[in-house]
Amino acid sequence: RSGKGRFRRSFLSTAVRFYNKDLSFVDLILSYLIDSLTVGSSSGISSATPTEEMNGSGNLMDFLDEPFPDVGTYEDFHTIDWLREKSRDTDRHRKITSKSKESIWEFIKSLLDAWSGWVVMLLIGLLSGTLAGVIDLAVDWMTDLKEGICLSALWYSHEQCCWTSNETTFDDRDKCPEWLKWAELMTGHSEGAGAYLLNYFLYILWALFFSFLAVSLVRVFAPYACGSGIPEIKTILSGFIIRGYLGKWTLLIKTVTLVLAVSSGLSLGKEGPLVHVACCCGNLFCSLFSKYSKNEGKRREVLSAAAAAGVSVAFGAPIGGVLFSLEEVSYYFPLKTLWRSFFAALVAAFTLRSINPFGNNRLVLFYVEYHTPWYMAELVPFILLGVFGGLWGTLFIRANIAWCRRRKTTQLGKYPVLEVIVVTGITAILAYPNPYTRRSTSELISELFNDCGALESSQLCDYYNNPNMTRPVDDIPDRPAGPGVYTALWQLALALIFKIVITIFTFGMKIPSGLFIPSMAVGAIAGRIVGIAVEQMAYHHHDWIIFKNWCRPGADCVTPGLYAMVGAAACLGGVTRMTVSLVVIMFELTGGLEYIVPLMAAAVTSKWVADAFGKEGIYEAHIQLNGYPYLDQDEFTHRTLATDVMRPRRSEPPLAVLTQDSTTVEDVETLIKDTDYNGFPVVVSRESERLIGFVQRRDLTLAIKNARQKQDGVVSNSVVYFTEDAPQLAPNNPQPLKLRRILNLSPFTVTDHTPMETVVDIFRKLGLRQCLVTRSGRLLGIITKKDVLRHMAQMMNQDPESIMFN
Amino acid sequence: RSGKGRFRRSFLSTAVRFYNKDLSFVDLILSYLIDSLTVGSSSGISSATPTEEMNGSGNLMDFLDEPFPDVGTYEDFHTIDWLREKSRDTDRHRKITSKSKESIWEFIKSLLDAWSGWVVMLLIGLLSGTLAGVIDLAVDWMTDLKEGICLSALWYSHEQCCWTSNETTFDDRDKCPEWLKWAELMTGHSEGAGAYLLNYFLYILWALFFSFLAVSLVRVFAPYACGSGIPEIKTILSGFIIRGYLGKWTLLIKTVTLVLAVSSGLSLGKEGPLVHVACCCGNLFCSLFSKYSKNEGKRREVLSAAAAAGVSVAFGAPIGGVLFSLEEVSYYFPLKTLWRSFFAALVAAFTLRSINPFGNNRLVLFYVEYHTPWYMAELVPFILLGVFGGLWGTLFIRANIAWCRRRKTTQLGKYPVLEVIVVTGITAILAYPNPYTRRSTSELISELFNDCGALESSQLCDYYNNPNMTRPVDDIPDRPAGPGVYTALWQLALALIFKIVITIFTFGMKIPSGLFIPSMAVGAIAGRIVGIAVEQMAYHHHDWIIFKNWCRPGADCVTPGLYAMVGAAACLGGVTRMTVSLVVIMFELTGGLEYIVPLMAAAVTSKWVADAFGKEGIYEAHIQLNGYPYLDQDEFTHRTLATDVMRPRRSEPPLAVLTQDSTTVEDVETLIKDTDYNGFPVVVSRESERLIGFVQRRDLTLAIKNARQKQDGVVSNSVVYFTEDAPQLAPNNPQPLKLRRILNLSPFTVTDHTPMETVVDIFRKLGLRQCLVTRSGRLLGIITKKDVLRHMAQMMNQDPESIMFN
Repeated sequence: RSGKGRFRRSFLSTAVRFYNKDLSFVDLILSYLIDSLTVGSSSGISSATPTEEMNGSGNLMDFLDEPFPDVGTYEDFHTIDWLREKSRDTDRHRKITSKSKESIWEFIKSLLDAWSGWVVMLLIGLLSGTLAGVIDLAVDWMTDLKEGICLSALWYSHEQCCWTSNETTFDDRDKCPEWLKWAELMTGHSEGAGAYLLNYFLYILWALFFSFLAVSLVRVFAPYACGSGIPEIKTILSGFIIRGYLGKWTLLIKTVTLVLAVSSGLSLGKEGPLVHVACCCGNLFCSLFSKYSKNEGKRREVLSAAAAAGVSVAFGAPIGGVLFSLEEVSYYFPLKTLWRSFFAALVAAFTLRSINPFGNNRLVLFYVEYHTPWYMAELVPFILLGVFGGLWGTLFIRANIAWCRRRKTTQLGKYPVLEVIVVTGITAILAYPNPYTRRSTSELISELFNDCGALESSQLCDYYNNPNMTRPVDDIPDRPAGPGVYTALWQLALALIFKIVITIFTFGMKIPSGLFIPSMAVGAIAGRIVGIAVEQMAYHHHDWIIFKNWCRPGADCVTPGLYAMVGAAACLGGVTRMTVSLVVIMFELTGGLEYIVPLMAAAVTSKWVADAFGKEGIYEAHIQLNGYPYLDQDEFTHRTLATDVMRPRRSEPPLAVLTQDSTTVEDVETLIKDTDYNGFPVVVSRESERLIGFVQRRDLTLAIKNARQKQDGVVSNSVVYFTEDAPQLAPNNPQPLKLRRILNLSPFTVTDHTPMETVVDIFRKLGLRQCLVTRSGRLLGIITKKDVLRHMAQMMNQDPESIMFN
Repeated sequence: RSGKGRFRRSFLSTAVRFYNKDLSFVDLILSYLIDSLTVGSSSGISSATPTEEMNGSGNLMDFLDEPFPDVGTYEDFHTIDWLREKSRDTDRHRKITSKSKESIWEFIKSLLDAWSGWVVMLLIGLLSGTLAGVIDLAVDWMTDLKEGICLSALWYSHEQCCWTSNETTFDDRDKCPEWLKWAELMTGHSEGAGAYLLNYFLYILWALFFSFLAVSLVRVFAPYACGSGIPEIKTILSGFIIRGYLGKWTLLIKTVTLVLAVSSGLSLGKEGPLVHVACCCGNLFCSLFSKYSKNEGKRREVLSAAAAAGVSVAFGAPIGGVLFSLEEVSYYFPLKTLWRSFFAALVAAFTLRSINPFGNNRLVLFYVEYHTPWYMAELVPFILLGVFGGLWGTLFIRANIAWCRRRKTTQLGKYPVLEVIVVTGITAILAYPNPYTRRSTSELISELFNDCGALESSQLCDYYNNPNMTRPVDDIPDRPAGPGVYTALWQLALALIFKIVITIFTFGMKIPSGLFIPSMAVGAIAGRIVGIAVEQMAYHHHDWIIFKNWCRPGADCVTPGLYAMVGAAACLGGVTRMTVSLVVIMFELTGGLEYIVPLMAAAVTSKWVADAFGKEGIYEAHIQLNGYPYLDQDEFTHRTLATDVMRPRRSEPPLAVLTQDSTTVEDVETLIKDTDYNGFPVVVSRESERLIGFVQRRDLTLAIKNARQKQDGVVSNSVVYFTEDAPQLAPNNPQPLKLRRILNLSPFTVTDHTPMETVVDIFRKLGLRQCLVTRSGRLLGIITKKDVLRHMAQMMNQDPESIMFN
C-alpha cells in the first residue's frame, strides 16, 4: 500500500503543478477529493464497518450474537471460506425464521429479508441500465466532439444534430448546416488542405486530451478502475477479497474514464468495463442489506447477477448476459442466482431501452436483419473465418501477455501516463486518414454487419444497380461491385492491420479498456472482406462448380454482412474462449435461429484452433500474469497425492499446532508473532497428534486482544483451552481463557493418500481455504489454497512463485 | 423383480388369449419378442457386460488394468460414487495421454477418444431429431385417422391430403373431396345425425384401440416406458442406477407407444417422453465408446446433453433445451457439458427441421408473430394469469399426487389396462362434441396462440369487420366480437374444465404421458378467454379510466393470442416450477425480446403463488412419491449435527468394521453374510479405532471369490490384510490374502460436530455415497446417502421410510 501511496503523492504534485498554470481552483478540488479519498479508499467490497452497518440497518443486527466485532471477517487479499459463509447465512436465516413467529413485526422483517435479494436485483438493473445509457449518450457526443460541434444545441451529437435539423435530406443524412466541423467553425472554410489539417490536428488534440484526463483520473482517484476488470471480477467471485475493487470510487471513476477512453478513439470497447461497473453497482447495493454486506458468499451471488446485467446492457442481450456470467465469470452459480441474474439482466436491458441511447427503440447494440438464407457451401468460408479467429486469438493473447509482462518488468511500467499519451497519439494519427478507423469502432462494426439495401448510401454498398430491377427492396440480387467497394476493400485491409497491431498495445494500459469491441472489429473487417470476395466470385463466376449448385444468376446468394458477423464471433471466441454465451449473444443480435449454425461453426472452429495453441483465454492469461489465486475449472490430471503437496515438507520444521488445554496465552502470542500462517490446527496433545479443530489466526488475535482488555485475570501465562470444560489446574494458576467459541470443530480433512485431483475438486467445489491432512487419525500437515495453486502451476511448468497470496 | 415377472406372465397369457381369437401369428411374434426381452431387459444403463465391451471396442480396452472383472461397477438400484468415477476417468485419460506418445497409432486413438464426446453428441442429435420427426408425422396421421382417411394416399394426414388436392380453395382449406370422414366412406352420407353418431362411435373406437395397444405394449415389453420419465431421469442423473430404464427396448416401445398415446386423444403431450427418448438414444450411443459405457459419471454427462436435445426437438428451442437440462434435469453440469449440450440440441433441431414435419419450414412447434406491443396496464391481467397458473399448479400437483398415491395403495393399481381404457373412453366421449377438445391439443394451443389476421377463418376470429378498413393486413384495429367468438368462449370454458379434470387422472397412467402440452393448453384457454374479455372491454369502454391512457378507438390495443401465451407459460411454470428455461423456450417461440416482460411477470407470479403452497414441482413430487433417492438442491436449514444422523445410534450395536491385519477370510465372509451394508471401514485395530480406509462390499465379495478360485493357499482362516506389507504370522498359518488394491485409502471423513447442512452440501456437491464420522481421529460412525435423505425427510415431517434404498 505504501508504494502505491507514494506514487500517488508524487504524481499528484506533478499533476497539481501542471493544472496550476491555468486553473487555480483545481488544487482546491483535488485536495477536497483526496480528503474524501482517505474515506473512500476503505469503502468497497467488505469494507462496511460494524458501526456503519448499525446505522444502515440497525434493526436487523440484533440477532448476530457474535462474540466480539470482526470475528469471521477477512483481511484484504485473503481467500474466503465458502462453507463457513454458507453456514453463517443458514444460521442467520434460521434465527430470522424462528423469530418471525414471535410477532407481526418480526414476521414483516423476515419477509423483507426474503425479498431483499429481489430488491437488490431491481436496483442493480435500474442503476446499471441507467449508467449504460448515460455512457452511450456521452460517448456519442464526445466522439463527435473530436470532429465538430452542433451549433443549434451544443449537447447534440452529430446524428441528433442533423436529425433535428429541417434541412437534412435523406441522401445526405450526415450533412446539415447546424453541424460544423472545427475548421469550418474557426476559419470558415470547410474544404481544402488547410481545413483538413486543422481538423486532423484538433482530432488528435481532443483524443490526447480525453485520454490524458482518463489516465490521470484513474491514477489519482481509483487505480482499480483500469483495464477491463473481468480477470479481477473472476478472481473476486472465486472467493478472493480485493478491498476497494468494487467500491464507490471505482464505480464513479470507471464510469467517467470509460467515457473518456472510448471517446478518445483508442482501440478499446466498453463491454468489459460495463461488467465491472455493474458489479460495482451490485456491491454498492449489497451494503444496504446486512444479509449481503456481512456475508461474503451471499455478496458473490449478487455480484454474479450484476455481471449478467453488465453484459446485458453492453449488448442488449439479457439471455446472453446470464450465460456469460454462468460460463465465463461466475464460480458459484446456484439456480436461485440464475433466476435472479435473469431478472437483473432484463431490468437493466429495459432500463437501457427506455433511455433509448441509439435512438432506434432497439435493445441491441448492432441490430441486423438479413433477408437471404445461407447455403451449405458457405460453411467453407465460415470455417476459414473460424480458423482466422482462432489464430488471431492466439496471436493476440501471446503478444498482449508478452507486452504486459514487459510493462511489468521493465521501466515501461513506470510511465503509464506517457504510455497512454503515446498510444493515443499514434492511434489518432493513423486513424484519422482512414474513414473506417476514424469513426467509433461500434459504428464501424454496425456498418460492416449491415446488409446492403437499395437505399444504403455507404461506400460499402456502392454496387452497380440494374436499372430494370423491379424486385422489392429487401430482395436485391447479387450485383457487380462499383469503385466504392474496391476503395472500401483497401481501406478495410489497412484498418485490419492497424487494429490488429494497436489493440495488442492498448489492452492493459492504465485506462478502462474492453476487448469485445476491438476483437469483433478485427473479425468483422476480415469477414466483410471475405464476404465481398465470395459475393463477387459468385457473381462473376456462377458457372464454377462450387457455385453452380446454389447460386443461379440474378439470385441473392451471398450476404457479406453475415460474413462480418461470423468473423466477429470467431475472433471474439478466439480471444475469450466463450462458446455458448457468444453464440447466444450473436443470436440475440440477429433474433433468428437461422444463422446459429454458421455462428456456431465459426465459434467451434475458432475455439479448437486457439485451444490447440494454448488452453487459456485472455482473462485466464491475465489472471495468471497478475498471479491472482484463481482455481480454474480445468481438470487436474496429474498423479500426485495430498502427501506430496501438504506442508510441512520433509525438510521443514513441524507443523505449528496448538494443544487443546496446555498452551498459555503467551505461547499463542509467540506463535502468532513468529509465524504468518492464517490459522492453526488444535490437537489433543503434541504426542497423540489427534485433531480437534482449527482456529483462524485473525479470530485468535482478536479473541486474545479482547480478553486481555475486558476479561479480568487473563494474563500471559493463563492457559488457553479449547475443551468443553476448563482443565484441572493448580489453584495458584491464573484464570484460564476459554476459546472454544472461535474453534472450528469441523475442519476439513483428507488422508495423505487422497489423489490431488480429488483435493483440487474439493477445494473447487466446496470453496475451501485450507484442508488438513491426516493418516490413520493423526494430523500430518496442511494444504492451503495457495499450496494447491502452487502445485498446479508447478505441474504445468509455470512459475509457482507468481501467485498472489493467502 | 419376481413380482413384476409374475404379473407380466399372467398378463401375457390373457393378452395372448385375447389376440388368438383373430390373429394366430401374434403368438409367435410375442414368444419371439419375449425371448429377446430376456436379453433386452439386461440392456440399458450400465448393463453392457465386459465381454460385450470387448467386442464393441476391444482395442480401447487394454489400458484398463483392473484387478478382476466388475470391480468398480455398481449393482442395480444403487448410488454411484461420483468422486470415484471421476478419478477413474482421470486415470484412464492419463494412461491414454502417456501412451499417445509411444506410437502414431496410439496418438490417433487418443485423438479418437478426445473426439468421441462430439461424435456421441452428433449421433444423439441426429437420432433424436429423426425420431421426433417420425413421431410428429405419425401422430399427425393417426390423429386424423380417428376421423377419416385420405383416399388419394392412405398415408396422408388431413392437412397433407387437402394440400395436395387441386380442388382445395383458400377459404375451405379443410375440405377436399379426397379426404373422407368414416361415415361418408361407409354410408355415403356426410351430414345428418346418423353420420355424426357413426363418426362419434368410430372416433371412440379408434381412441380405445390406440390406447389399448399402447398400454399393452408398455405392460408387456417395457414397463419403464410409461409416464413422462423426467422424475426418473432426474434421479438417474443425480447418480442412481436403474438398469434398463434407458435401454433399447424402452427406447423402441416408448417411441411407438408415445405415438399411440398421443393419437388416442388423451390429455397428454409428447414433450416429457421425448426427453426420455432422447436420453435412451444417449445411453445407446454411450455403449459405443468405453469412455462412456464404463464410467457412470461420464455417461451422465452425455445424458444431460441428451435431455437438452429432447427438449430442443420437443419445442424447436435449442437454447431453452439446454437451460431446461441445466435448470430442471441435470445434477452435475460442467461447462464442457453445456457446450456439448448446445451442440446436440442444435443438431437435433436442425435434423427435425430438415424432416419438416409441420410443413412450414419452421423449427418451432407453435410459431407466432404478433404485431402490436403490449402496454403497462396489461401487466394486471398478465399477473392475474400468473396467479391462476400458480393455483392450477398447486391444485394439479396435490390432486394428481393424491390420485397416484391412491393408485399405488389400493386395488386400482392392479388394473392399469382397464384404467387406461376407461379414461380414454371418458376422454373420447366428452372430447368429441366440443371442437376445441376434439382436435389434438397442440393444434388447439397453436390456434389459441394465433393473432387474428384478416384472412383467418377460425371461429375465434369471427369479428365484425369494418368494411371501410384500409389498413394493412397485419395492423387490424380492435373490433367487436361476432357470434362465433361468443360460441367459442363457451366452448373454451367447457374445454377448460374438462382439461383440468381429465389431466389430473391421466398423468401417471401406465402409458407415456407428458405434462407440458396439457398444462399449456389449460393456460392457453384461460389466457385466451381473459384476452378476449379484455379486448372487448377495451373496445366497448375505451373511455374507462383503465383504458383511456393507452387504447384509443380504432387502435389495435389488445392481442388475445399473447394472453394465451402468457397463460400457457404461467400454468406450465406453476406445474413444473421452471423459470429461466420456461421464459427462454417461450422467447424462442416468439423470437422477440418484446414479450419477455409479460412472460416473465406471469412466470414469476405463478412460481411465487405455487411455492407459497408447497415448494416442490410435479417432478419432485413424483420423485418423492416413488421414493427415489434424490438429493434436491434446496437448502437444508436445520440445526442438526453429523452425530445426530450417523449410525450406529446409541442403542444400536457397534459399527461393523474390518481391521487392517487381523481379520480372517471367514470373518469377512460372515460379516458380509450377516450384514447388508454396502461397505466397511477398515481400522488399525478395534482398540484404537483409527481409520485406514474403506472397502466396498461388492469389491470385497468379488475379491474373495476371485482369490478362492485362483489363488492357491487362500482358505477360510487365511488372514486378510490391507497394509502395505504382510503381517508377521506364525509359519504354520495359511497364506494371507492381500486386499490393499481394493481399499479406498482416501475415504471421506467429517467430524461429529460438522453441521448437517455442511454434510448435505458435501454429499450434494461431491456426489458421495457415504461419509465416515470421526472425533479426534477416532472412527465413530458412518453416514450414507440414505441416512441423509432419511434425515431430511424426517426434518420435513415426511415419512422417512418411503425412500428407495442403497
